[in-house]
Amino acid sequence: MSTSATSPASSVTLTEARAIIAAGQKEAEAQGQPMNIAVVDHGGNLLAFERMPNAWLGSIDIAQKKAWTSRAFDIETGDLGKNSQSGDQFFGIHASNNGKVMIFAGGVPLKRNGQVIGAVGVSGGSGKQDQAVAEAAAKALEA
Amino acid sequence: MSTSATSPASSVTLTEARAIIAAGQKEAEAQGQPMNIAVVDHGGNLLAFERMPNAWLGSIDIAQKKAWTSRAFDIETGDLGKNSQSGDQFFGIHASNNGKVMIFAGGVPLKRNGQVIGAVGVSGGSGKQDQAVAEAAAKALEA
Amino acid sequence: MSTSATSPASSVTLTEARAIIAAGQKEAEAQGQPMNIAVVDHGGNLLAFERMPNAWLGSIDIAQKKAWTSRAFDIETGDLGKNSQSGDQFFGIHASNNGKVMIFAGGVPLKRNGQVIGAVGVSGGSGKQDQAVAEAAAKALEA
Amino acid sequence: MSTSATSPASSVTLTEARAIIAAGQKEAEAQGQPMNIAVVDHGGNLLAFERMPNAWLGSIDIAQKKAWTSRAFDIETGDLGKNSQSGDQFFGIHASNNGKVMIFAGGVPLKRNGQVIGAVGVSGGSGKQDQAVAEAAAKALEA
Repeated sequence: MSTSATSPASSVTLTEARAIIAAGQKEAEAQGQPMNIAVVDHGGNLLAFERMPNAWLGSIDIAQKKAWTSRAFDIETGDLGKNSQSGDQFFGIHASNNGKVMIFAGGVPLKRNGQVIGAVGVSGGSGKQDQAVAEAAAKALEA
Repeated sequence: MSTSATSPASSVTLTEARAIIAAGQKEAEAQGQPMNIAVVDHGGNLLAFERMPNAWLGSIDIAQKKAWTSRAFDIETGDLGKNSQSGDQFFGIHASNNGKVMIFAGGVPLKRNGQVIGAVGVSGGSGKQDQAVAEAAAKALEA
Repeated sequence: MSTSATSPASSVTLTEARAIIAAGQKEAEAQGQPMNIAVVDHGGNLLAFERMPNAWLGSIDIAQKKAWTSRAFDIETGDLGKNSQSGDQFFGIHASNNGKVMIFAGGVPLKRNGQVIGAVGVSGGSGKQDQAVAEAAAKALEA
Repeated sequence: MSTSATSPASSVTLTEARAIIAAGQKEAEAQGQPMNIAVVDHGGNLLAFERMPNAWLGSIDIAQKKAWTSRAFDIETGDLGKNSQSGDQFFGIHASNNGKVMIFAGGVPLKRNGQVIGAVGVSGGSGKQDQAVAEAAAKALEA
C-alpha cells in the first residue's frame, strides 16, 4: 500500500490539533471541569483525542462524534440541535449515520480564511461548559 | 498471558457487588417486583449481574446499560434523563455510545469517600421501582 | 406490564446458577487463573454473571456468548468449534447471530434428566482452563 | 454531576500517554511510515490518540481496537493472533466483543512493576512495522 497525497493546506494539521486541544484544556482547567477533546480533519476523520484526568468515560465517544458532526454538516452542534428537537425540521437526524450525529453543544467547525478545514468536539460538562471549551479550542487556530 | 494490576482500592470489588445486588433484591422482594441488577466497576466494565425469577428479559440489557451510563457520566440515570428530553441541553445523548446510554431512572453511581468507584443498574419495573431498588442496592456499600 | 409464567422446572434457576458459578470459581482458584463465568437459562437469556478479580475484560462478553452459544445449539462450544474451522461444515457460523456464536472451548450445556435446561460459559484463560472450569461448574447441578 | 475517583496509581496517565505516543512517532519517523497510535487506560478506555500526517484512515479504528484488545486480554495482539488462526484454541475470538478484538500485531500492554496498567495500539504499516512502533512506544513508560 502507498500513502495518500499530502494533506491539503485546506485541512487542519496534527500540530494544529495539539494546539487546539491544549487551548481547550486550558479553558477546562479554568472551569475546573475535566473534558474529552477531539479534532477531526477536513475529511471528518479523527486526527487527535485526549481525555483529561477524571473526565467522563461516556464522553470519549461523544467528543469524537461532536467533532465529526460539526464537520459533517459544517455547523456548530448546538446550532444543529436547535433545528433537531421534536417538531423541528431535522428531528430524527440523530438516528442517521449509525448514531454518529450529536445534536447538543460542544462541536465547533475549524476555519481558515472562512473555509471549514476540520472541527473540534468537546464533552465532559454541561452544554454551556462544553461549548466554552470548544470555542476556546477553536480560537487557537487564529493565534 | 499475564494478569492486570490488582484492582485499585478506588474500584468496587466483586464481594461488594454481591452485597449490593443482594440488598437490591431484598428491596425488590419487598416491592413484589422481580428485577435485573448489574454492577460495573470503576472502569465501567461489568462485575456482576443477576436476574430474579420472572424478571423481564428485555431488562437484562437495560440494567447493564444503566449501570454503565451511571458510571460513564458519574450521575444517576434519572437525573441524566431530566436533561435529555427534547428541548433540553443533552437531548440526543441516547444516540451516542452505540446505544449504551440509558436516560431513565434505575442507574446510581457507587461512591466511597465521596468518589465514584462504579455503579449499579436496575431494570424490571416502573422508573420509581427501579430507582428505589438501585438506591437500596447502593446503600449496601455504606454498611 | 405483567410477569411471565413461573420458570418451568425445565430451566436452571438463579439459586442453581449461583452454585454453578461458585463451583466454577473454586476450580478457577485451584488453577490460579481468574475467570468470567456466565449462566443462561432454558431460553438462552442471561441469568447470572460474575467476573473474578483481575479476570480479563475482553472475556466479559465472551463468557456470556459461550453460554448463549452452548444453549443455542445444545452443544459444548469446543465441539461446535471442531466443525467450524476453515474447510469444515459449519465454517462461518461465528459470523451469524450478530457475532454471538463462540466456537472455542468454555461453553457447556446444563442438563437435568438428560434434558438441556441452560448453559454455562467461561472465559479467562486457555481453552483447556476455560473448559475445566465450565465442566466443574456444570457438575454443581448434579450435586 | 460529580467526578470519579482519582485515577489509581495502577493506571497509565494522560501525561504518560503523550510520552508513549511521542516515542512511537519517533520510531515511525525513523521507519518513514506514518502511524495511528492510541493509548487506553487500566479500564480499557481511550486516553489519547494521534494520527500522523498521511497515516491510513482505516487504521484510526484499528489502532484503538488493538489498544483495547491488548488490555482486555493482557497480551500483545500479535501473540493473541498466534492462538486465533483456524484450528487454534481461540479461533473465532475476532467475532466477539462486537468486532473490537484485533488479532494481528501492533497492540502491546503497558506495565508498571510487572502489572498491566493500560495498553498502546499502533496501526499504519505492516505487522512488523506496527509492532516495532508499539514496542518503542511502550518503552517510554520505563524511562
